Amino acid sequence: MKFKRTERIGAIVKILSDNPNKIYTLSYFTEQFNAAKSTISEDLLVVKNVFEKLHLGKVITISGAAGGVKYIPKTSKEENAEFLIDLCNRINDSERLLSGSFLYLIDLIYDPGIASRIGKIFASNIDYSDADYVVTMETKGIPMALMTANAMNLPLVIIRKDIKVSEGPTLSMTYASGNNGKLESMSLPRRALKPNSKVIIIDDFMRGGGTIKGMIDLMKEFNAEVAGIGVFISMMKPEKKMVEDYISLIQLDVEGDEIIVKPNRDILEGTEE
Amino acid sequence: MKFKRTERIGAIVKILSDNPNKIYTLSYFTEQFNAAKSTISEDLLVVKNVFEKLHLGKVITISGAAGGVKYIPKTSKEENAEFLIDLCNRINDSERLLSGSFLYLIDLIYDPGIASRIGKIFASNIDYSDADYVVTMETKGIPMALMTANAMNLPLVIIRKDIKVSEGPTLSMTYASGNNGKLESMSLPRRALKPNSKVIIIDDFMRGGGTIKGMIDLMKEFNAEVAGIGVFISMMKPEKKMVEDYISLIQLDVEGDEIIVKPNRDILEGTEE
Repeated sequence: MKFKRTERIGAIVKILSDNPNKIYTLSYFTEQFNAAKSTISEDLLVVKNVFEKLHLGKVITISGAAGGVKYIPKTSKEENAEFLIDLCNRINDSERLLSGSFLYLIDLIYDPGIASRIGKIFASNIDYSDADYVVTMETKGIPMALMTANAMNLPLVIIRKDIKVSEGPTLSMTYASGNNGKLESMSLPRRALKPNSKVIIIDDFMRGGGTIKGMIDLMKEFNAEVAGIGVFISMMKPEKKMVEDYISLIQLDVEGDEIIVKPNRDILEGTEE
Repeated sequence: MKFKRTERIGAIVKILSDNPNKIYTLSYFTEQFNAAKSTISEDLLVVKNVFEKLHLGKVITISGAAGGVKYIPKTSKEENAEFLIDLCNRINDSERLLSGSFLYLIDLIYDPGIASRIGKIFASNIDYSDADYVVTMETKGIPMALMTANAMNLPLVIIRKDIKVSEGPTLSMTYASGNNGKLESMSLPRRALKPNSKVIIIDDFMRGGGTIKGMIDLMKEFNAEVAGIGVFISMMKPEKKMVEDYISLIQLDVEGDEIIVKPNRDILEGTEE
């Protein structure tokens, strides 16, 4: 089959966009579209332009034997600001108030579109260049952790709370939950991580940081290094967390009937070009 | 900013592809690209061609006041066959055998790329035209259910096993688990589903069908109608399931050290054009 220029470009955009951080060789495209290398090279220049002009991320060229092009999702500061401000407005709704100063948020954090945007923001603000896995703990963080793993092109690892789960030999640990200081358990199959891995930890929520601290400790048991931590919502109180070096997208405080919620300034003014 | 034809086409492909089943008006694109309606109409014809020629799904035009174009992900039978056969080969590995005839599969089903493909296959084989939600039960089905919800452009609802979870007033139910007939519990916040909803149930695994049967019963308590059921792996035994009218992608049997695994013929010879 022969393809017109416009068709090839549309197709290349689709392939790269569906497979973030995956390297495609020039030969892959020449075979796919039955076209010369020079033709595909020109196409790729246009594709790069599309992504940059519309702030859709970057398409970069990797040279060498294992070379080719890959798409790196990268959200712009303006886009992030707009998205997070809108999300904060939706969170700031007294109908979301549950007893115990909790908020009903699962309609938002389980939403595939929102989870996908959150994943792209984490991928734009956390350095995952050496990372081997994205790690989260069940349950509410799974959708955004999966979308983060998708944007980073990394496998996802889910820590379970239930130690009865049968996934072969499993490493279990207790930790003090931030909510009430109660001892809770977390567990992960021995073979879930290869030795000496680097991991990115993603979770939906942080109060004191006890759960994330537990996850970091569990990673040590696997000889894994934590290369970055991303949290969707962090509570303003307590100010002192059990964890340092994390990024959070939204800061939250609930006092009685009052909800205080705002995007984290670090993300809005972040380190992007 | 002005855009060249090729750039507009690349950008339209990206926008549609990132947002399956979402309707975009002609005006959206004319404003985005500062171009005339006739120009965008021509672009859209090319875009439609790209998707059809490469079997990437369909871009359809919706007429009327709320009209526009939308992208419907649709996988081809050939693609599905190739993907599922490869997956079966990876499942058929004696190193995956756990005690109790279980298989270690979480490295596969938590993989974002695999979950995404599974989601698109479900979206290609289940009629979700009237559906309001994708529903799953924690934990292992969540990644593929999220990707299914993403492909269908529907919100995801996750049933919890833990009835202590604080998400406001919650409806809980016990059901007989297929594994051992033991009574287990499932729960869902009252406000997770709006009244008289239609739902698509997605789960990773089915032996006797007890869990899915429980989910169907729970849906009745919410006055919700189950419009379709998709299961990733169904065990060949018992042949008689507690549930009818489901589709499964892969059939599995484990006898001692022997793993029998194959794609479901219905999917390979499915109802697609």
